[in-house]
Amino acid sequence: MTFTTDEVNALLAEGFPSAFANGFRCEELGERWSLARWGFRESELRPGGYIPGPTLFGLADLAFWFAVFTVVGLEPMAVTSDLSIAFLRPAVGGDALARAEILKAGRSRIYAEVDLWVEGAPGRLVAKAHGNYVLPAPGR
Amino acid sequence: MTFTTDEVNALLAEGFPSAFANGFRCEELGERWSLARWGFRESELRPGGYIPGPTLFGLADLAFWFAVFTVVGLEPMAVTSDLSIAFLRPAVGGDALARAEILKAGRSRIYAEVDLWVEGAPGRLVAKAHGNYVLPAPGR
Amino acid sequence: MTFTTDEVNALLAEGFPSAFANGFRCEELGERWSLARWGFRESELRPGGYIPGPTLFGLADLAFWFAVFTVVGLEPMAVTSDLSIAFLRPAVGGDALARAEILKAGRSRIYAEVDLWVEGAPGRLVAKAHGNYVLPAPGR
Amino acid sequence: MTFTTDEVNALLAEGFPSAFANGFRCEELGERWSLARWGFRESELRPGGYIPGPTLFGLADLAFWFAVFTVVGLEPMAVTSDLSIAFLRPAVGGDALARAEILKAGRSRIYAEVDLWVEGAPGRLVAKAHGNYVLPAPGR
Repeated sequence: MTFTTDEVNALLAEGFPSAFANGFRCEELGERWSLARWGFRESELRPGGYIPGPTLFGLADLAFWFAVFTVVGLEPMAVTSDLSIAFLRPAVGGDALARAEILKAGRSRIYAEVDLWVEGAPGRLVAKAHGNYVLPAPGR
Repeated sequence: MTFTTDEVNALLAEGFPSAFANGFRCEELGERWSLARWGFRESELRPGGYIPGPTLFGLADLAFWFAVFTVVGLEPMAVTSDLSIAFLRPAVGGDALARAEILKAGRSRIYAEVDLWVEGAPGRLVAKAHGNYVLPAPGR
Repeated sequence: MTFTTDEVNALLAEGFPSAFANGFRCEELGERWSLARWGFRESELRPGGYIPGPTLFGLADLAFWFAVFTVVGLEPMAVTSDLSIAFLRPAVGGDALARAEILKAGRSRIYAEVDLWVEGAPGRLVAKAHGNYVLPAPGR
Repeated sequence: MTFTTDEVNALLAEGFPSAFANGFRCEELGERWSLARWGFRESELRPGGYIPGPTLFGLADLAFWFAVFTVVGLEPMAVTSDLSIAFLRPAVGGDALARAEILKAGRSRIYAEVDLWVEGAPGRLVAKAHGNYVLPAPGR
């Protein structure tokens, strides 16, 4: 890796300021994977303390974006083509974590899956996501 | 329909307060469909004026929820099982609208698809979503 | 259109001979859409007369492929990237039909949705599919 | 497990005879998972020796069905609700294998994901699938 999580978070703050303001961060990076965090904030919760589905979707989407960087470099132009999320269990009680792993990186398309859980319960997935990123054509 | 969009929006404000605060609303309701709106707010945009993907996902999810009400009544316990979204074009320039239509309503599962566009350009979909809701078992 | 359904079916017979042998055909073509048919054969059915899910998936996949031809020409190298199918009702009683419609055709990715029904009951969808095709890079 | 792969294959032969005739089998079973095999047959291949996408979809669907048995018993009435497959690499050269793993088993819905590869290359996924099964309501 030729860049750090701090650099990724700086890019996030610049390229997706509302996500940065809402507590999303890049936590770890490795070859073809990333770990992203959503920092718990009570104001976002639904009654009963549930982390909303769209918050989990947003976290999965960011984890995917960060993992793409580990393949193509800090290229903010990669965009989500499609992303599917299945909600498996209620998400309650703390920060949410998402680990994206790239299963196939082609020239124009990157496919990944994302595991999501609440901090402290890594074995109990609250959601699982899958999808594609598309890369801008070279020379564009 | 035995309830109004105002009642749906009151339920939204109570059951998903952060979404209500962020400008999401139920706009219209019909038999097995709904129209939802995200009121443009510049602070959410990404550089270049793009409406973020997770905002569109959240709007699709809410439109689906509202459409489910038209089948099962104002039942806030219906929860998204899975939702998939494909991003088709950049979403820029105004409020976002989502029309959810239920294709199949079974006893425990409701399948719908959602068209999304930016106000003023209904023929140009910016995203398309589809997924399942699961209903709590009767008598639970 | 500079080609006919007969030409598409000739390409199918050559490029996917087992599908051709199993009764799949291109039935109609239009700008950015196609209609495909699976000719009923009792030997494929499951007990009770149900058309199997994988047969419907195969039909959706072919309808998508045919629709792609209407955008890029008779280019057999377009390949399915991903395809999602939701089964909505039991499929019984006759030929199966699938209408694919392209919602977005980009340079490297084509997104479409597919409606599936049993002949004689076009208003009652038995399945709905969505997915992406990827195109070979120009000059490859 | 109170049943064997032989019993599952007998149920397959009875409940999905065309799949059984086309070389699909249950190979292994464990708690919340299964391994399914498609026995290579040249007549099904596409030119170049490619295993067709719908064949891989059918294999994923069967692996999922077998895995469901390990949770609910030999209940042939469980039906696929929706299944999504992403094709990652060309599938060539031998039998295809699919391992389905259940991530969540609820009362009316079971979510699983499926890894697919060609025999001899388990580290190189040719496809990945995920989806939902729905169970008949108790007492029906």
